[in-house]
Amino acid sequence: MSRKDAPLKKCSNIKEITMNENVCTPVLNTGLRGVDVASSKICDVRGKQGKLIYRGYLIEELAQKASFEETCFLLLYERLPKARELTDFDQSLRNKRRVPENIFPFLKSLPREMDPMDVLQMATPLLMQTDANVGKEGMENTLYSAENLIAGMPTITAAWDRIRNNLDPIAPDNSLNHAANFLYMLTGEKPDKETAHFFDVSLVLHAEHSFNASTFTARQVASTKAHIYAAISAAIGSLSGALHGGANVRVMKMLKEIQTIDKIDAYINGILDEGGLIMGLGHAVYQTDDPRAIIIDPMSKRMGELSGDTRWYELSKALEIKGKRAFMERKQREIFCNVDFYSASLFYAMGITTDLFSPIFAISRVSGWSAHVIEEQFAMAAPKPSLYRPGAAYVGDYCGPDECVYTEIEER
Amino acid sequence: MSRKDAPLKKCSNIKEITMNENVCTPVLNTGLRGVDVASSKICDVRGKQGKLIYRGYLIEELAQKASFEETCFLLLYERLPKARELTDFDQSLRNKRRVPENIFPFLKSLPREMDPMDVLQMATPLLMQTDANVGKEGMENTLYSAENLIAGMPTITAAWDRIRNNLDPIAPDNSLNHAANFLYMLTGEKPDKETAHFFDVSLVLHAEHSFNASTFTARQVASTKAHIYAAISAAIGSLSGALHGGANVRVMKMLKEIQTIDKIDAYINGILDEGGLIMGLGHAVYQTDDPRAIIIDPMSKRMGELSGDTRWYELSKALEIKGKRAFMERKQREIFCNVDFYSASLFYAMGITTDLFSPIFAISRVSGWSAHVIEEQFAMAAPKPSLYRPGAAYVGDYCGPDECVYTEIEER
Repeated sequence: MSRKDAPLKKCSNIKEITMNENVCTPVLNTGLRGVDVASSKICDVRGKQGKLIYRGYLIEELAQKASFEETCFLLLYERLPKARELTDFDQSLRNKRRVPENIFPFLKSLPREMDPMDVLQMATPLLMQTDANVGKEGMENTLYSAENLIAGMPTITAAWDRIRNNLDPIAPDNSLNHAANFLYMLTGEKPDKETAHFFDVSLVLHAEHSFNASTFTARQVASTKAHIYAAISAAIGSLSGALHGGANVRVMKMLKEIQTIDKIDAYINGILDEGGLIMGLGHAVYQTDDPRAIIIDPMSKRMGELSGDTRWYELSKALEIKGKRAFMERKQREIFCNVDFYSASLFYAMGITTDLFSPIFAISRVSGWSAHVIEEQFAMAAPKPSLYRPGAAYVGDYCGPDECVYTEIEER
Repeated sequence: MSRKDAPLKKCSNIKEITMNENVCTPVLNTGLRGVDVASSKICDVRGKQGKLIYRGYLIEELAQKASFEETCFLLLYERLPKARELTDFDQSLRNKRRVPENIFPFLKSLPREMDPMDVLQMATPLLMQTDANVGKEGMENTLYSAENLIAGMPTITAAWDRIRNNLDPIAPDNSLNHAANFLYMLTGEKPDKETAHFFDVSLVLHAEHSFNASTFTARQVASTKAHIYAAISAAIGSLSGALHGGANVRVMKMLKEIQTIDKIDAYINGILDEGGLIMGLGHAVYQTDDPRAIIIDPMSKRMGELSGDTRWYELSKALEIKGKRAFMERKQREIFCNVDFYSASLFYAMGITTDLFSPIFAISRVSGWSAHVIEEQFAMAAPKPSLYRPGAAYVGDYCGPDECVYTEIEER
């Protein structure tokens, strides 16, 4: 078979390469890097300056001053809430923390070793059972659903972690804020103020990051007019991939592999000799330290002190310094910390199992995903609804100048 | 707030428009139309010629000569099977039809009115429980998973339809082929040969269609290195949208609204006066009759005869003729039938509830989705894995020349 005589294909406008004289095709898997696929009012990522901006506000200000609940309001409603609005919004989330009862027997029916992200992807749409308006058009309905998702996903995540450890799920405590309640449902103990605060800040930091892969998935599903539960479940699936949400899990795995500071040099040399990457260093967008990493660094340090084990923070810090130096010496280029680099040791010092790092990412990012679903379907929808339907260059075989001829099965 | 002083944004390369003197942005929701996002060897859609090609073979040939099982082999393994290979593949699918037992109590715990697409999105990843290698790298593992999905999704779909109607699910009958077995599990009766054949052909016709929205979702999730169960579940979510898989449901709804041939003219005039669309006429890609519609038309006719009710076929045919004429007279342009136009009356004549039309689409398309997941992750993967991570033009507000300043909540 040959594609020599295949008809001329229209080339991509991304980047053209010629496969042979007749066929021209875009570079494989460019992943749409550098292609603006839509306009958005939600988030600005300025990679060169190391700025991350939600709805006009710098992440540094939000991390210092706004709770996760307030950040959710900002993302969903496009502005900071007045005092009364925030109280109402917060209460509304608390009222939605209890999840439909059939979720618990479902979770109990699953094999204990099932990945929490798989469980979360499957169980999250069950939250639609307490949503009378699911699938009905209208931004108000979808805002309600978004609250339902933001409030319910932590309950599912904590319940699964309890159930797989043969413990009873813990009902939400409505006297606690969103962050503290999650840690409480996970452990059965109310967290100290500092730990709860650090967790709250982590949720703020992970809430939104423009058109990353999972957000793009959520928007794409929403663009077909599927409801928000379908879109968020799909986004969780996207986040479950090792190249996306799994990054801080891999940072922690790396830290455990290195074990002690004296082994860092050998580790770095081994990785760089193989042409590999140091997990948590480098980012597709930032050309300086990720602003979130700068905020997490001291929290990870302090959390290490609180937990009585500063080893993983110290190892991370030494790895950052030595890793950056090695990149400069061996590759003559700078490399920078991304958000996953210090969030690994931060969450670990909180006593959180590593395979919950991605679900925690999801619990936070559901706020940003929801804002994007709403923008896609309502806030900035095109006058005529239009789903994402790209093209692809066909580079498959033909069996001659025309299409292949189906040969009878005995003759193959 | 104003964006007047927002810094200049780099414009998209898709299509540029100027919002004001300082901000430039791509057209909203272009949906990536006409942008080739990757190369693919799976499917060629030649809209002008009305040709649909799977792996080099014209859809007309496959619909006439290949079973759905053979089409799945072609899509997954990139070539037609030899006789022994097809027998083995078919047997392997039959062996995977029984689904994990905990799926049934899960389905029974759901509200009876839940949409079958929502159920399918949630329950499909449960199939991973019988897949020892889920999440492990390697094309062989993913091919196994693809078979597991293709074999298991019909069982889930049929079981849900039984359960919501207070009937017991029916175990698969391994003496029947894929198409006949699904109809058997749905109704409890073995279908006659002609009906089973038409259903088989329908599965062949819906198996693959290049980078449509749900396939793009599947590829995108797969690009993060998420496993195929996460990707297929996400794709089902995408297909559940009214603009995508829901189209033939809306065709049937329209036919029931029109009711009789004498009311067609009034219906068409009403729709066109409002600037609306006639469901099932028009397609984003084809500039002639969808080749699948041409194949389904006589099947729908014959199925009407078999069922003793030719009314919906006849109504469809009259609507096609009058609709095409009205478009030409009123808009001076041709309009063409798409696949949904006759599949609505075909499935309806088979006695299938309209809200199962989309799940049946999914049962078929899972073969194409799987081929795309495999291509994305293995068959045509870039040397360096790269997830889909597009950009977006930020057109949100700033509160002056710099970022917004966070005001204390009492001062808002």
